[in-house]
Amino acid sequence: MHKKLFIPGPTEVREEVLQKLATPQIGHRSKEFQELYSSIIPKLQKVFYTNNKVILSTSSGTGLMELATRNFIAKKALGTICGAFSDRWVKIARANGKEVDVIEVEWGKHMPTEEIDKKLATGEYDCLLYTHNETSTGVRNPIEELSEVMKKYPDVVWCVDAVSSAGGDLLKVDELGVDFILTSTQKAFALPAGLAIGVVSEKALEKSKQVPNRGYYFDIQVFMKYDGRKQTPTTPAIPHLFALDYQLDRILEEGMENRYKRHLEMAEYVRGWAKQYFDLFAEPGYESVTLTTVANTRGINVAELNEELGKRGKMISNGYGNLKEKTFRIAHMGDLTLDEIKELLNDIEEILGL
Amino acid sequence: MHKKLFIPGPTEVREEVLQKLATPQIGHRSKEFQELYSSIIPKLQKVFYTNNKVILSTSSGTGLMELATRNFIAKKALGTICGAFSDRWVKIARANGKEVDVIEVEWGKHMPTEEIDKKLATGEYDCLLYTHNETSTGVRNPIEELSEVMKKYPDVVWCVDAVSSAGGDLLKVDELGVDFILTSTQKAFALPAGLAIGVVSEKALEKSKQVPNRGYYFDIQVFMKYDGRKQTPTTPAIPHLFALDYQLDRILEEGMENRYKRHLEMAEYVRGWAKQYFDLFAEPGYESVTLTTVANTRGINVAELNEELGKRGKMISNGYGNLKEKTFRIAHMGDLTLDEIKELLNDIEEILGL
Repeated sequence: MHKKLFIPGPTEVREEVLQKLATPQIGHRSKEFQELYSSIIPKLQKVFYTNNKVILSTSSGTGLMELATRNFIAKKALGTICGAFSDRWVKIARANGKEVDVIEVEWGKHMPTEEIDKKLATGEYDCLLYTHNETSTGVRNPIEELSEVMKKYPDVVWCVDAVSSAGGDLLKVDELGVDFILTSTQKAFALPAGLAIGVVSEKALEKSKQVPNRGYYFDIQVFMKYDGRKQTPTTPAIPHLFALDYQLDRILEEGMENRYKRHLEMAEYVRGWAKQYFDLFAEPGYESVTLTTVANTRGINVAELNEELGKRGKMISNGYGNLKEKTFRIAHMGDLTLDEIKELLNDIEEILGL
Repeated sequence: MHKKLFIPGPTEVREEVLQKLATPQIGHRSKEFQELYSSIIPKLQKVFYTNNKVILSTSSGTGLMELATRNFIAKKALGTICGAFSDRWVKIARANGKEVDVIEVEWGKHMPTEEIDKKLATGEYDCLLYTHNETSTGVRNPIEELSEVMKKYPDVVWCVDAVSSAGGDLLKVDELGVDFILTSTQKAFALPAGLAIGVVSEKALEKSKQVPNRGYYFDIQVFMKYDGRKQTPTTPAIPHLFALDYQLDRILEEGMENRYKRHLEMAEYVRGWAKQYFDLFAEPGYESVTLTTVANTRGINVAELNEELGKRGKMISNGYGNLKEKTFRIAHMGDLTLDEIKELLNDIEEILGL
C-alpha cells in the first residue's frame, strides 16, 4: 500500500503529475527541448516574483548549497546555524575550502536579524548564508525583516536556502532583494526529487566572475552560457522538466497568494491541534507555514505511531537527528489539502487514543 | 509526434520503463527506500562484473567526472584527449584547481596505450583520466590493452568515463582493474537522464581520504557513509531509481554477453551501411559498439536529413562541435534492435535517394 507522504520531503505527488514523468524522451539539444526550457523559466520567474535568471540543476538542493559556496564566497562568509540544514551549509562551505564565521542559536529558535546586522557591519564578509525555513526544526526565519537590513550591505551576496518553503510560502525575490535563492522540487512544489532550482541576481552573477575555483558542474557561469541557448549545461532530468512544466501551470492556476493562504490555513490548523494535545517546538511567532514540528510532551513512541499510520497508508516524520522521539514533524506542503490534514490528525488521535 | 531517438543520448526508453517513473513517491530515509537501494546495488555490480562499491548520484555523468577530479587527484593527473568529452574532463579538473598534463590525439583517432605508459613511467602522476567511448567521435579506446599496462602503476588511480558505453559494451570492472568508472542512465542503460552511476575500488576510496577540498555533494566519502545505511547522501531522483531497478531486471534477463552481442551486431550493420554509402570517421579497429560516426563524404545536408527523419518520427545526431555537417552520428545503443536500425537506415536511403 502506498503511504501518503506528510513528511517534509519528498512530498506527495498527484497522479496526473506523476504521469508527466513518463513522457517519451527528447534530445536535450533539440528544438523541442528549447521550447520546454522556454516554457518553464518564465513560469518559475512568476512563482518567485522575479526578473532574475533561473537555473535548473540536476541535483538535490544540497548541490545548489554547494554552488552558492563555490560561486559567491571570495573573502569570507557569514553562516547562520539554527538547525541541521543550516549547519550542513556551513560544513559544505568549509569542505570547499571557504572561510566561514557563524552565528549559532539553539535549535527551535529563530536567527536574530540584529545579530546578522552586527556581524555584517564589521565589513569582514562578502556572502551571507541564510536559511529561510529550517526543515529540521520547523522554524521560519524573518526574511522580510532581514531584507530591510540587507539594503545596507550592497557588497554582500545574500544566499537563501528555501528548500522547504519555496512554492508554498511566499518568496517575492525581487522585493526581498535576495541574490541567490535555492530550492528543490520534492517539497512545496509537490514534484519528485531529482531537480533543484536556483534564482540568481545580476550582482551575484557579476561577483561570481571574480571567484576562482568554481569547478564546472556547479559553476553558475556555465549555467548562464547554456541559458543563452535555452539549454542546460549537461543532460538534465528530462522527466522532471516535463512534470515541472505541467505542475507550474497547476501552481499558477491556483495562484501564489492562494497557495500561500492554503499552506497557512493548514499550518494554523496543525498548530492548533499540536497545542491542544502536545506543544509546538518552534519559537512562537517563527513557525513554518510548510511544516510543523510538534514537541513530544506526552512521550509517545513516535516510531510506533508511524508504524500504525503506515497501516492506514500515511507517513509522518520523526524528529531530526537529536530531536528524534523528542519531536515529530508533520508537513503540510505542496498539494496537500486541509481535508487530508484533518484526516491525518484524526488517525493520529485514534491511534494514540487522544 | 514522438521522434524515436537514435542519438547518442538521451536514448529511446521503452514505454513500460517510462511508466515505472510514475511510481508513487516514498521517503528517502524509509525502509521502503532501503529495500529499493538494496535491490539496485547488487544488480549494478552484476552489470559491471564487480564486487566494488557502487554509488548513485543525482547528477549527469559530468557530475561524476567532477567527483573523480576532486577525490582522486592529490598530485597531478594525466588527461587523455581524443574528442569533446575527454577534453571537457581535463577542463573540469583544471576548473577544480587540479594540475593536469595531457596526451592529445586528432579527433577520430584512438588514445595510444604506449603513450600513456611512457607518461606514467615518469612517476609524476597519481591519477589517469581515460575515456572508454568518446561520444563526439565514435571511437572506442582499447581499455583491455591498457588494463595490462595499468598493473605496473598501483599508485595511480585509474578513472574511466564509460558514459556512452556502459550497459551496452562489456566492462568487466574487476578484471580490468579500473578504480573509478562512471556512467549515466540515459545512454546504453536505456533510461532517462537525471542519474549517474559510479563504481569505485577500495584503493580509490583509500586514496580519496588523503585528498583535501573534496567538497560535499561529490565527496565519495559522504556517499560511502550513507551507503552503509543503504541510502544516498541527499534526496535522490527517486523516479529514476524505480525505473533503474526495473530496467536492471530487463538487462540481466537479456544477459550482459547477449546485450553486448546485440550492440555489436547493430554496430557492424551500421558500419557496413556507412562504408557502402559514406565512410567511417573513427580509426579502423577502434569503432564504438554503441554509436557510429559517419564521415559525410557525400556532403549531404545533415540538418535537413534530420528534419525529414523527424517527419518520419526518428532522430539522429549531427556531428559534434567542429564535426557538425562533416559527420553525423547514429546511436545503436540501449534497447534498440537491429530491426529498428534497419528501418532507420531504409528511411535515410529513401530520403537521400541512395
